[in-house]
Amino acid sequence: MRVRKRKGAEEHLENNPQYVILEPETAKGKWQQVFGNQNPIHIEVGSGKGGFITGMARQNPHINYIGIDIQLSVLSYALDKVLESQLPNVRLLRVDGSSLTNYFEEGEIDLLYLNFSDPWPKSRHEKRRLTYKDFLKTYEEILPEHGQIHFKTDNRGLFEYSLASFSQYGMTLKQVWLDLHASDYEGNVMTEYEAKFANKGQVIYRVEAQF
Amino acid sequence: MRVRKRKGAEEHLENNPQYVILEPETAKGKWQQVFGNQNPIHIEVGSGKGGFITGMARQNPHINYIGIDIQLSVLSYALDKVLESQLPNVRLLRVDGSSLTNYFEEGEIDLLYLNFSDPWPKSRHEKRRLTYKDFLKTYEEILPEHGQIHFKTDNRGLFEYSLASFSQYGMTLKQVWLDLHASDYEGNVMTEYEAKFANKGQVIYRVEAQF
Repeated sequence: MRVRKRKGAEEHLENNPQYVILEPETAKGKWQQVFGNQNPIHIEVGSGKGGFITGMARQNPHINYIGIDIQLSVLSYALDKVLESQLPNVRLLRVDGSSLTNYFEEGEIDLLYLNFSDPWPKSRHEKRRLTYKDFLKTYEEILPEHGQIHFKTDNRGLFEYSLASFSQYGMTLKQVWLDLHASDYEGNVMTEYEAKFANKGQVIYRVEAQF
Repeated sequence: MRVRKRKGAEEHLENNPQYVILEPETAKGKWQQVFGNQNPIHIEVGSGKGGFITGMARQNPHINYIGIDIQLSVLSYALDKVLESQLPNVRLLRVDGSSLTNYFEEGEIDLLYLNFSDPWPKSRHEKRRLTYKDFLKTYEEILPEHGQIHFKTDNRGLFEYSLASFSQYGMTLKQVWLDLHASDYEGNVMTEYEAKFANKGQVIYRVEAQF
């Protein structure tokens, strides 16, 4: 998600260290301490403006959520939402999806979400897609054995690519939705982007894939 | 595909043993002899009125095609098309998809097509879907190691089910199309059903899955 640069975003993040983990390397292997409980930890890679992760955190108070994004401005909007609801079970990290093993121990994360990731449609940018095999390898390292990725997108090309990428990596597709909003799937928390595009009649794809 | 019963269908099939193999058990392990050459053999399970298989046979004269359907009437329409073009590389069988190992030796078939199979949408009919695991087991037996299934359908529920079924069986998805006619896939031969529904703007799904 590309958004306009927000003035003061960096200071906003730095001023809220109870939610924004500024030195995430130091938390590696200690995330249960960070949250102060032993609840499962779910992360969203590319959490954007935080609509999904804060919605999920409200819906599931006994799960801890970590939102990860590399962009200062979007992360600062996500922080607004966390502050607004004073959600004790959310943390935000400004890091890159490819460096997750620096911040999480093997198996420390119970479930990983990818929502409306950048499609990078050109073949030469394949390696940047968050479902490219190198990313999957990283995710596999921080998830438990048979850990899952839950992925949704409105982008047909990215979804076609990702189904094949998961499968060719050796993952198993547990369930596939080719029109999520027309299905009987319950409890869907929409991202800001999803709400906007679904209203235009855009099909939303979803898959649960397991290592 | 359900069609009205055709009068004289049975006699029509019996009168053309050069194309319709009436005692297919006797051909098991001897299909190269049936075709009189060593070209690869592709089968379509549920070949309906034969539009796909005859189109493919015209496009690929160095591949042998076997169309399989259990319904007399549709098979007799497929025979009309084979007769019309006098296609030397097509044979038709009136047998059931679950009994393929009675007619084909291990690895005797090089590629298997499923097109617009009956969706059997009710859960209690799952076992009848041609992508149910028991059918996959049968297909695996008559295909070579790493043999492929090429499947297309306009039915969203069946496609969702089939992607998961292939994957959970241990197959690898080589490529997925979520809107075949909008893609750059070349050489697509349409079935009668596909031509009709694609004209109405219906999305056609396709996958190539490998054992």
